[in-house]
Amino acid sequence: MTTAFSHIAIVGMGLIGGSFAAALKEYGLALSITGVDRDEATLRYAQQCGLIDHGLTSITPSLAGCSHLFVATPVGTFAQIFQQVAHHIPTVKVVDFGSVKGELSLELHQRFPQLDYLPAHPIAGSERSGIHAADSRLFMSRKFILTPLPKTSPDLTFQMQEVLQKISAHVCTMDPVEHDEIFGAVSHLPHMIAYALVDAISAMEKTSGLELSRYPGAGFRDFTRIASSDETMWTDIALANRSQLLNGLESFQNSLGNLRSAIENNDSESLKTLFRDARRYRDAIVRHMESTHA
Amino acid sequence: MTTAFSHIAIVGMGLIGGSFAAALKEYGLALSITGVDRDEATLRYAQQCGLIDHGLTSITPSLAGCSHLFVATPVGTFAQIFQQVAHHIPTVKVVDFGSVKGELSLELHQRFPQLDYLPAHPIAGSERSGIHAADSRLFMSRKFILTPLPKTSPDLTFQMQEVLQKISAHVCTMDPVEHDEIFGAVSHLPHMIAYALVDAISAMEKTSGLELSRYPGAGFRDFTRIASSDETMWTDIALANRSQLLNGLESFQNSLGNLRSAIENNDSESLKTLFRDARRYRDAIVRHMESTHA
Repeated sequence: MTTAFSHIAIVGMGLIGGSFAAALKEYGLALSITGVDRDEATLRYAQQCGLIDHGLTSITPSLAGCSHLFVATPVGTFAQIFQQVAHHIPTVKVVDFGSVKGELSLELHQRFPQLDYLPAHPIAGSERSGIHAADSRLFMSRKFILTPLPKTSPDLTFQMQEVLQKISAHVCTMDPVEHDEIFGAVSHLPHMIAYALVDAISAMEKTSGLELSRYPGAGFRDFTRIASSDETMWTDIALANRSQLLNGLESFQNSLGNLRSAIENNDSESLKTLFRDARRYRDAIVRHMESTHA
Repeated sequence: MTTAFSHIAIVGMGLIGGSFAAALKEYGLALSITGVDRDEATLRYAQQCGLIDHGLTSITPSLAGCSHLFVATPVGTFAQIFQQVAHHIPTVKVVDFGSVKGELSLELHQRFPQLDYLPAHPIAGSERSGIHAADSRLFMSRKFILTPLPKTSPDLTFQMQEVLQKISAHVCTMDPVEHDEIFGAVSHLPHMIAYALVDAISAMEKTSGLELSRYPGAGFRDFTRIASSDETMWTDIALANRSQLLNGLESFQNSLGNLRSAIENNDSESLKTLFRDARRYRDAIVRHMESTHA
């Protein structure tokens, strides 16, 4: 089978790295997997579960036998990891799984022209994190975005497409900058808003002396679920996709300002129109998601 | 059984009114229920399902035989309904199920001193609405807030407590103004933010020409679920709880401003601290919800 990997490495054995290892193992798509993670307990656990065959706490020349290296760490670590890869194992093909592509991946592409590099982004997050949340079915029926760059070899892109289809992901290819504009709006912006809302409620609880936190309904739980996401990962994303995110915040602050003015002016017609249009737009999106099982 | 109702009326046969009728019927707590709703098809459906015994399209003197009247319409209709009740059937005991108490209920209390009136609020909403979503178990294990006013008869409050306990709701009693401060923060504010976010994404889609709506993940679906709520109900809530909601928006806009500044200044430490504190606060709330099955 020409599309299966022989020896590969995965850097960062968290939810995404661990789940990718689990999926490759389940479908028999890799002969051997080396997990790279600075946390030894994580490596031991991954090895005990059969997700990886070997563990390493850093990128060393001993990885030279690997054909592919998958980077599944927070995007703020990419520059350093790519530097080590370019230094120790420059012939390995590199695929990253970060939530930000755009300028970040173009910069890495320019800085390390010797690497065959394909940026990728699995749309399969969870507010859970860490190797204990790893799940071989995490990518199943989920979008998996590839954003090939000018010097990415067509072979690498093709091989990733084949492997991702085998693990039942829905592969989409798009421009890296367009990727950041889209996910800045539909994913990164909502995360910022959820964090800010929880921060505001916490501040209001302190100021008012009322036990606000005793009265959340199910709406609050769902609405703020993404505010339980890992803070290091999201700090990195916020800064790496800074310009698109600032555009999104601007747009959101405009919408919120309009809504606030309508409340201040007791303008029930404007409020009702805004709420109705938002409901219709949101319902149409969810119907589309359900019809495509996304 | 002294706590059961003989003849009662429910005004507004939507999700809440219909579910309350269904619960009373299931537990045999009312001899007969008259549903009042201006939509005849709703009344027919409710009668066919056995939720009500009679249907009326408006409040008339024929309701004089009812001991209690429950108001389950959008809060913007309360003043008019109370006026009709005070005119046609002033001896009926009135309980409203609106999401806003505070000044609204104090105003009704002052304006209609002849009515024995108890404000109540079931914390059991859903983005679904209408009689077709009615569910006799909607209030089960959910908080049901009562905010008795100076002239509410202790009998009425006591009787409601007994009935609500029988349908397995968790009854809490609190001050009406405190109620609005709490739910302004944990429920009304999140709804405004969800609507504003969906509005912003819709505007960004139009401006960018990118098909943003094709790429939402599960986070988007959960985060914006409450933006599919009924617009008339939420316009009324936003305006009836205007002052608390404007305080909440102020606090949220501060939190969002801090977050935005941190992104603008590439201040990863402040971002990480804000995200971490929000995650911890949110996780603690959800643990509390789960431990109390709220």
